[in-house]
Amino acid sequence: MASNSFGEIFRLTSFGESHGEALGGIIDGVPAGIEIDYNFIQTEMDRRRPGQSKIVTQRKESDTVQFLSGIFEGKTTGTSIGFIIVNENQKSRDYDHIKDIYRPSHADFTYDKKYGNRDYRGGGRSSARETVARVVAGAIAKLALNQIGVTIQAFVNQVGTIKVEKAYKQLDLSLTESNDVRCPDLKIAAKMEQLIKETRKKGDTIGGCVQCVITGTPIGLGEPVFDKLHADLGKAMLSINAVKGFEYGSGFAGVEMNGSEHNDVFNTDQSTQTNNSGGIQGGISNGEDIYFRVAFKPVATLMQKQQTINNTNQEVEMEGKGRHDACVVPRAVVIVEAMTAITLFDFYLRNKLARL
Amino acid sequence: MASNSFGEIFRLTSFGESHGEALGGIIDGVPAGIEIDYNFIQTEMDRRRPGQSKIVTQRKESDTVQFLSGIFEGKTTGTSIGFIIVNENQKSRDYDHIKDIYRPSHADFTYDKKYGNRDYRGGGRSSARETVARVVAGAIAKLALNQIGVTIQAFVNQVGTIKVEKAYKQLDLSLTESNDVRCPDLKIAAKMEQLIKETRKKGDTIGGCVQCVITGTPIGLGEPVFDKLHADLGKAMLSINAVKGFEYGSGFAGVEMNGSEHNDVFNTDQSTQTNNSGGIQGGISNGEDIYFRVAFKPVATLMQKQQTINNTNQEVEMEGKGRHDACVVPRAVVIVEAMTAITLFDFYLRNKLARL
Amino acid sequence: MASNSFGEIFRLTSFGESHGEALGGIIDGVPAGIEIDYNFIQTEMDRRRPGQSKIVTQRKESDTVQFLSGIFEGKTTGTSIGFIIVNENQKSRDYDHIKDIYRPSHADFTYDKKYGNRDYRGGGRSSARETVARVVAGAIAKLALNQIGVTIQAFVNQVGTIKVEKAYKQLDLSLTESNDVRCPDLKIAAKMEQLIKETRKKGDTIGGCVQCVITGTPIGLGEPVFDKLHADLGKAMLSINAVKGFEYGSGFAGVEMNGSEHNDVFNTDQSTQTNNSGGIQGGISNGEDIYFRVAFKPVATLMQKQQTINNTNQEVEMEGKGRHDACVVPRAVVIVEAMTAITLFDFYLRNKLARL
Amino acid sequence: MASNSFGEIFRLTSFGESHGEALGGIIDGVPAGIEIDYNFIQTEMDRRRPGQSKIVTQRKESDTVQFLSGIFEGKTTGTSIGFIIVNENQKSRDYDHIKDIYRPSHADFTYDKKYGNRDYRGGGRSSARETVARVVAGAIAKLALNQIGVTIQAFVNQVGTIKVEKAYKQLDLSLTESNDVRCPDLKIAAKMEQLIKETRKKGDTIGGCVQCVITGTPIGLGEPVFDKLHADLGKAMLSINAVKGFEYGSGFAGVEMNGSEHNDVFNTDQSTQTNNSGGIQGGISNGEDIYFRVAFKPVATLMQKQQTINNTNQEVEMEGKGRHDACVVPRAVVIVEAMTAITLFDFYLRNKLARL
Repeated sequence: MASNSFGEIFRLTSFGESHGEALGGIIDGVPAGIEIDYNFIQTEMDRRRPGQSKIVTQRKESDTVQFLSGIFEGKTTGTSIGFIIVNENQKSRDYDHIKDIYRPSHADFTYDKKYGNRDYRGGGRSSARETVARVVAGAIAKLALNQIGVTIQAFVNQVGTIKVEKAYKQLDLSLTESNDVRCPDLKIAAKMEQLIKETRKKGDTIGGCVQCVITGTPIGLGEPVFDKLHADLGKAMLSINAVKGFEYGSGFAGVEMNGSEHNDVFNTDQSTQTNNSGGIQGGISNGEDIYFRVAFKPVATLMQKQQTINNTNQEVEMEGKGRHDACVVPRAVVIVEAMTAITLFDFYLRNKLARL
Repeated sequence: MASNSFGEIFRLTSFGESHGEALGGIIDGVPAGIEIDYNFIQTEMDRRRPGQSKIVTQRKESDTVQFLSGIFEGKTTGTSIGFIIVNENQKSRDYDHIKDIYRPSHADFTYDKKYGNRDYRGGGRSSARETVARVVAGAIAKLALNQIGVTIQAFVNQVGTIKVEKAYKQLDLSLTESNDVRCPDLKIAAKMEQLIKETRKKGDTIGGCVQCVITGTPIGLGEPVFDKLHADLGKAMLSINAVKGFEYGSGFAGVEMNGSEHNDVFNTDQSTQTNNSGGIQGGISNGEDIYFRVAFKPVATLMQKQQTINNTNQEVEMEGKGRHDACVVPRAVVIVEAMTAITLFDFYLRNKLARL
Repeated sequence: MASNSFGEIFRLTSFGESHGEALGGIIDGVPAGIEIDYNFIQTEMDRRRPGQSKIVTQRKESDTVQFLSGIFEGKTTGTSIGFIIVNENQKSRDYDHIKDIYRPSHADFTYDKKYGNRDYRGGGRSSARETVARVVAGAIAKLALNQIGVTIQAFVNQVGTIKVEKAYKQLDLSLTESNDVRCPDLKIAAKMEQLIKETRKKGDTIGGCVQCVITGTPIGLGEPVFDKLHADLGKAMLSINAVKGFEYGSGFAGVEMNGSEHNDVFNTDQSTQTNNSGGIQGGISNGEDIYFRVAFKPVATLMQKQQTINNTNQEVEMEGKGRHDACVVPRAVVIVEAMTAITLFDFYLRNKLARL
Repeated sequence: MASNSFGEIFRLTSFGESHGEALGGIIDGVPAGIEIDYNFIQTEMDRRRPGQSKIVTQRKESDTVQFLSGIFEGKTTGTSIGFIIVNENQKSRDYDHIKDIYRPSHADFTYDKKYGNRDYRGGGRSSARETVARVVAGAIAKLALNQIGVTIQAFVNQVGTIKVEKAYKQLDLSLTESNDVRCPDLKIAAKMEQLIKETRKKGDTIGGCVQCVITGTPIGLGEPVFDKLHADLGKAMLSINAVKGFEYGSGFAGVEMNGSEHNDVFNTDQSTQTNNSGGIQGGISNGEDIYFRVAFKPVATLMQKQQTINNTNQEVEMEGKGRHDACVVPRAVVIVEAMTAITLFDFYLRNKLARL
């Protein structure tokens, strides 16, 4: 029932509003003995941080994590890890102009109707700023997964109509962080960057896709029949703000294939010749690469005039203020990775229980 | 942790193997006072049943549900509802020929590696036959949702490359059950049926998509930040056998849009002029129609020879026996509806807790 | 939220009314590879069964368990285990005379008020007959715990004012099953049996206590801060019908002690000289014996006239019909053991997750 | 699985070590619209605070709560409430002398064995200092319950062998806070205070009992069959440090009664003439007062020399340092109330789901 929690064993519970005192979370179910690399965690936070490059929102936050418990002498102790990220400029912006307004395609209307009131400052809890807590938990999950040999790499593979046409195996994923868009196909990256800049100039926004690739997953992760590995990865992705779709392995394209071409034939070393299954069969990892794609809609906040209504159903005109992303996918890359890491490490722990 | 359970309040826990004694489940958290229409439930079972038409598997099962508890004098009592569906022909088939074989793109290999043993008869627990329990719970959820004014209608909108091009609003969804494919666009339905028959003749299989439309959803369903309504609908769909993708509202196509065209402008009656949001904003239903699409891969069991390996890594040749679907989507329609109903009714109950 | 489920990983979900078609359950989270000894399970059922001796209710039920899934070739497969126990004489009794009556100290009144209707036949879901499902799950947990070296032995240590004064270490617990009361102190057992018979003759009932002793528990079971091992054992016991109290280790008597006498001094082999802690420190097992006591109230159904009210608040006179226990503790022994086994095995599995 | 969480809907997740940076928690599932009285919350914290009177530990902490989210303009918003309590003197004490020592009847040994390492400073997570988070959540639950008309009053009813012999109905519970022991029977309170002072002088400790009385509970709270109201109250109490036993209604004394005297006869207004049931029948509240008793063992930390072992199994002599309680029950009163409030409000919310 706890809708601010994610994961069954390795479990993040988060709190915090865009313009409240602080955001943060508690991670429960962390096994004892994981070495905590604070620099790595902060590096992950920096990948999500606003203001990191010219094509993302220029809001200034250092997004420094303070750990309050659960770590002793550099290692996890097995007790719950509490952490906070203080909001530095929560009083610097004025949201009074949207206090009574339902912005189009935002959560203003639905929160107001559901709860009877809402923290309107910067979207309150519905702001994507809540993902800071996900990145912290994801970074700890990554540290644990590294010890097991799992790597997670996400990258932008589409902005608007500009797509990476190559399969991920043809790309050098180490190039992802080399450009502001976080696309390892550098020619495509340049085009994407151009499109984002043009879109921003018009005061408009544009959607995009993130692809994620996981290597080194042990065989056996996934808990049928409802907690299939890809089902929970799908939920993890769909729980991120602005996500509209998820597909893994052959995905929507697989629909058009015949079984005779779609089936992944085994090699005698138990690997498969193709990987339309996306590394998951019957909801359980088979040791091949896991890969999936996540669709993000264009950001709803525009730097141009829009018609909308207020909470007494009167038509009003509004315009976004402040500094917003024209395209979320470059910053979403680390959030996709974080949710992937949380999910995967959780299933790694769950799989310890499969046999007596 | 219970991976054979789905739902937080209205919660199905299921059991059963394809060729065991029986399948069944327990539904917990059913509010007292729901009138049970046994005929309706059986009708839903019949929509899923093998052998119902010429284009689906001809396995013969009557799939009769026996309710064992939780209903008294025609109404739910608030206690847990136990039910079983006896497997009628579980001894009639011989699966010894696949006992040691890992069939391509099946769950044989992953189950064996995860658990150290497996019930190989008909796929055991990994068989889509487990969805009978979902249909029972879904039918009860539908009976409850009917009382609230919610309707759920799924239909086939793609088989292979043959797609329904019309938007769902342009279709007469009452025609869905008029043909064996369950496609309300009758011209397209005929083509799909033709394709399925041809594919079967070749001993091959083909994928497809199911679209689902929900009308009458109350405003306020969905529990941010992790249990967004679409995130749990996505998980519900991805937990169904053979599903490879999920998108709602504008979905993957929304990626290519600008925010200025994607945003759904409010009317002064709080409805919206467009519905790219797919009836969900910030993870919470806004009262507009909810619609989504689900991608199913081609069935892995082929009626033709395939190369594979056995559990001692030797190459072997195999061929599917018995009666299998050449395309699952016609029978998947009711399963999509069932999982939608379970999810939606669960969120309806959860929303009762939003305010004191 | 699932109030008909118990356990986090090894998890029983149960269903069934006293006079419905059948009772049963699903056990999820059972590790693969546990050998199932059907005879042992049935023996446990027989220990709970009505009609087994002269001092318990003479209702006739064979209470045969039918397993429907999750076991293949004599071993658990890791998938959910469904089982049922058919009610053999569910139509043989007439409960019409209590249809509108609220029996004193029963659940008639509270169920009716909570749910707005109730299955009045034999108490419906509130009947202690629901514990059949607990005994099945407990028997499977015992089979697993046996492999780990854990033994669970419960016995009657009080009926009315007749108490076993010896500490459990001074008793030969193998004598428990040698008498109908299930008390290993044979002199006390004879007195208890006498008291139960006299009480029954008067048409009255009497309370009692069950003590339970667990040996061989591995160090480390228990999950602070809320899921302390004794906290969940306590809940397990208090969830059994008619239980009014729980104490472990020194219990209520420990209140009167000074810390200097209560503290358990360590030996240099890490065992302790005394065991006031009851084998649990800080909520985690320390390897010493775990022991606790459970208080059962006298059965509410009397074979004598009582005043009560009906559902229109009129005074009525009633008298118990049929065959009821004059004292529940002899049959409760196996239920206490079953709930202990479920809890302990669940915590055994949870403890696998304490370290990376 | 989340062992640092308590409650199903109204759910506290907590973190923090005795001598870490801060303790705190997140409360999820708080309905929107509860008015937050910060003064009341701080008053509750002060009732738990060390140093509040001469008979409790003199450790100095102001225990000020900082709320970080979930409250806007004085009311809950329906989103998760994050809060912290900064540890003010976490560096002022030196625990190096117990770094390698297993103190008798503490959690040092079991934590070390379970997790492979431990935060030894002041007991780390096993310290009763973690209950600060429970008091915060309990205070918010009380504010909500007040609106519903429920009152919760706990008091000390035993210290060592000194007992309140009167039934709670014969006491004026408003006197509880009038003395340092928190016992409403003032003559007994004086004796208790005397005993605690004498015990402290000897460097020893003593156990005690807290009784709790709940009035105004709506009929219908409790979720059979496993989540009986008293079962979860029992778990709530047993999860508090140093608790060894729980009994409700007639409790252990009820064991010695006949059914004919124990049964609570109905009045024609649906109240009962006696209340041996303790306000709960079949696991569901019946509208009568709920009352229970909780046994606390003597504190394990003594201000006198004790023999023990270190982590290399050598005998060592140790002596408690610093300021500790000689008897925990005066400060435990508010913790008992807090856990009662959390449990009760959670069940109040759950009961909203009993009927469609």
